[in-house]
Amino acid sequence: MPTLLPRVYAKEQPEEPRPERHGAAGGSHPSPCGRAQASLTRKRNGAAAAGAPPPPGPGSSPGPRAAPALTRRSAAGRLSPGDAGPEMAAARPVLARAVLQQCLSARLQVRPPENGSEAEWVEIQRGLVIYICFFKGADQDLVPKIVNTLLNVKLSENESGEYVSLLDLPGNVLIIPQATLGGKLKGRKMQYHVNIEKEKGLELYSQFVTLCEKELAANAKCTEAGVLLKYGTYGNRQVLKLDTNGPYTHLVEF
Amino acid sequence: MPTLLPRVYAKEQPEEPRPERHGAAGGSHPSPCGRAQASLTRKRNGAAAAGAPPPPGPGSSPGPRAAPALTRRSAAGRLSPGDAGPEMAAARPVLARAVLQQCLSARLQVRPPENGSEAEWVEIQRGLVIYICFFKGADQDLVPKIVNTLLNVKLSENESGEYVSLLDLPGNVLIIPQATLGGKLKGRKMQYHVNIEKEKGLELYSQFVTLCEKELAANAKCTEAGVLLKYGTYGNRQVLKLDTNGPYTHLVEF
Repeated sequence: MPTLLPRVYAKEQPEEPRPERHGAAGGSHPSPCGRAQASLTRKRNGAAAAGAPPPPGPGSSPGPRAAPALTRRSAAGRLSPGDAGPEMAAARPVLARAVLQQCLSARLQVRPPENGSEAEWVEIQRGLVIYICFFKGADQDLVPKIVNTLLNVKLSENESGEYVSLLDLPGNVLIIPQATLGGKLKGRKMQYHVNIEKEKGLELYSQFVTLCEKELAANAKCTEAGVLLKYGTYGNRQVLKLDTNGPYTHLVEF
Repeated sequence: MPTLLPRVYAKEQPEEPRPERHGAAGGSHPSPCGRAQASLTRKRNGAAAAGAPPPPGPGSSPGPRAAPALTRRSAAGRLSPGDAGPEMAAARPVLARAVLQQCLSARLQVRPPENGSEAEWVEIQRGLVIYICFFKGADQDLVPKIVNTLLNVKLSENESGEYVSLLDLPGNVLIIPQATLGGKLKGRKMQYHVNIEKEKGLELYSQFVTLCEKELAANAKCTEAGVLLKYGTYGNRQVLKLDTNGPYTHLVEF
């Protein structure tokens, strides 16, 4: 099989990059999740738009650019409407940061071994691992936007090698609270001053998990396939074993 | 063992967060790396400073803040010196993005199975997994800064539970080219317009790997412990198996 470059480099500008398929790409969807069903109005378009950057401003045409792009700040690097150009772009505060990785299977320790009892683990098969961190200023209004964006962004590879949303795959989800994602380099150390207070963080994390569960439960494809949602314990060390066919790591900021 | 919160939340503001230790935290350093020795002037302080944010501007005192921090843009959200305040912060372009994860072991496919031959893998034991992506505008002057920052940032947990640099641990390194880290959310899809052109990206990636090798080879602790550096194939799918005692995921932008 040729070792093609994934189409994620500058000149190719794909809508949906498709890295070369190799390795075991298959995966099965395990037993029914058995969670309480709950319906929730889906807000796909609104949520996707909320997580997306605004239309490019002056000087940031969608085509190839000769100069370094000053508006490349990913989902977070939004320009405020009144900005004259990229150089004066206002740094909108980041309220949450997610790192996404594809997995063939993932296993997370949710309780460490204690007093002779064995550690407790949760496990998913093929799907998406979401590492999530909330920053100061985040509130519950943000949670539906994050959930809808992450469940609807087309980053999950189906059997045909196309990238579809997790809901359309459909795939399993492992949510990992990962406060270290709020780290800010200061000299040789990381500081975490911008992370949300732990009680608020726990609250938002719980809401995030609950809303993901609801969205999966409200989705016919997911319930039919019996997709699983598993999640880590906020505040615990996230001991993780990950098996991927390409982690396909993405960063999404809100 | 109690399930303590790692000290990475807002109120605690640690210099070095120490998530609770549980699970198998041990790891051995494998056989000598056998790479060509090369000396290179170490630029620890300079490099660490280069990756660090500047001193806080007006309105961003180092203590707890009542209002959401408008300067929280991580390593990338630097204020330019002439800015009147956080709201007018200039969005400095990001030239490279790295995601770091701790591992107990990591195994990466560097050649897929072809014509009946088996896939080829590289493997490290305890150490650091570096996912790296270069953006348009990055050049070779940036590479030493990135290498020195990543090898010297104190994110590797030693036997005493303290966080030290990879060089001081000393630990193994797995470098994974991960162009998807340049993704920018646009609607429900990721776009990669800001990623560097693939030839330039390959060049910078190769320089990054080479310089990391030199730094490890020039470090007495690392050569004595026989630390390994392994790396993925630029442009290939990065099939990865990861075993962690907590991935301890960090984002560093340059």
